[in-house]
Amino acid sequence: MNDLMPAKALVVLSGGQDSTTCLYWAIKKFAAANVSSITFDYGQRHRIELDCAREVAALAGVENTVLPINTFSAIGGDALTDAEIAVSSKVSEAGLPNTFVPGRNLIFLTFAAAFAYPRAIENIVTGVAQTDYSGYPDCREDTMRALETALNLGMESSLSIHTPLMHLSKRETVELASELGALPAMALTHTCYNGERPPCGRCPSCELRARGFAEAGIDDPLVRKS
Amino acid sequence: MNDLMPAKALVVLSGGQDSTTCLYWAIKKFAAANVSSITFDYGQRHRIELDCAREVAALAGVENTVLPINTFSAIGGDALTDAEIAVSSKVSEAGLPNTFVPGRNLIFLTFAAAFAYPRAIENIVTGVAQTDYSGYPDCREDTMRALETALNLGMESSLSIHTPLMHLSKRETVELASELGALPAMALTHTCYNGERPPCGRCPSCELRARGFAEAGIDDPLVRKS
Repeated sequence: MNDLMPAKALVVLSGGQDSTTCLYWAIKKFAAANVSSITFDYGQRHRIELDCAREVAALAGVENTVLPINTFSAIGGDALTDAEIAVSSKVSEAGLPNTFVPGRNLIFLTFAAAFAYPRAIENIVTGVAQTDYSGYPDCREDTMRALETALNLGMESSLSIHTPLMHLSKRETVELASELGALPAMALTHTCYNGERPPCGRCPSCELRARGFAEAGIDDPLVRKS
Repeated sequence: MNDLMPAKALVVLSGGQDSTTCLYWAIKKFAAANVSSITFDYGQRHRIELDCAREVAALAGVENTVLPINTFSAIGGDALTDAEIAVSSKVSEAGLPNTFVPGRNLIFLTFAAAFAYPRAIENIVTGVAQTDYSGYPDCREDTMRALETALNLGMESSLSIHTPLMHLSKRETVELASELGALPAMALTHTCYNGERPPCGRCPSCELRARGFAEAGIDDPLVRKS
């Protein structure tokens, strides 16, 4: 990269709590003018995620590009894209939750890298975390480092994959969001596996989010007070 | 994997010479009953490739699944998917031919792994070769090994990426195809960058293929004799 050019960053923005926190992390590190965001329309059951991502990006003042991926639904067989499979908290024989899309983050990050390449963006930011990774092996630090190596070899690039939440608990992620001024954006995010807004409060994803906010002693702006 | 189960293999079949040779390599190694093939419909300008893949798989007696990828054309800007960009033999400033789709093979192999995962297929075969790699860094041995590591970490799998052509010259690839009985299938393949059948004979891809057959002293069954 030309040292006179500002470093640019691309945030993989799902419309959820973690990627929204990462967006604000990237804005602090790279400045909003150098940050853009990418969201994947991969056939997720909860289309509201795409709206959330767009609203979060607009509030933060960064571009948001939605890229379609029609391949996962063609491969089929997972709860987050196949409407016929009910989400459950049960795990498969391999110990993975049935919301597992094999390699989903690998695909997202590889497409992000392909998007970044012609735009001279050398930093990709993703909200994956292994602390609370819920059995998703594509969120782990060693997976990310191996993928970074594969991407840089495969594209002859000097890309860095930033994972600011990798070793944070949900509590620490909420605290980080608060420090970064990301709490107002949290009201625009989507977390619930059941697609409800306000969130159902009962699914594993809602419970994890609620526990994080409770432990941080911070009110979740998404949850309507009774 | 259960040792009593036969090892299964998935061939990434483009409809070209190299992946067709790999299909016959896989059939010899794993037996036709254990081999299936996958072809990506990623918006390539030459739709004939999809027909070629189907015909090659049918001749070889293996299943062929076509998976769509609508993401590359959304990212845009490469000659193989963007009809407005003429193919040329010129290279970009980065030294890559303008047919380069950043990370294309990384995406193909990651989707292949996601397809293989629920089907208990632990072998993926791809025709990438670094000998004649024409500037495509995603065809190199070190890229493939790094990707294999990333996929196995990211999916908690024990996948092997087989690259039987990796260190072969085009001449040696033709000789291998001949040894494997793959020459009849070569008449069904597609190579020409200009999408012509019989091939144009002038594009870099046709020239590379012709040189391989000439050096092996074998007639290319695709080329009509005058």
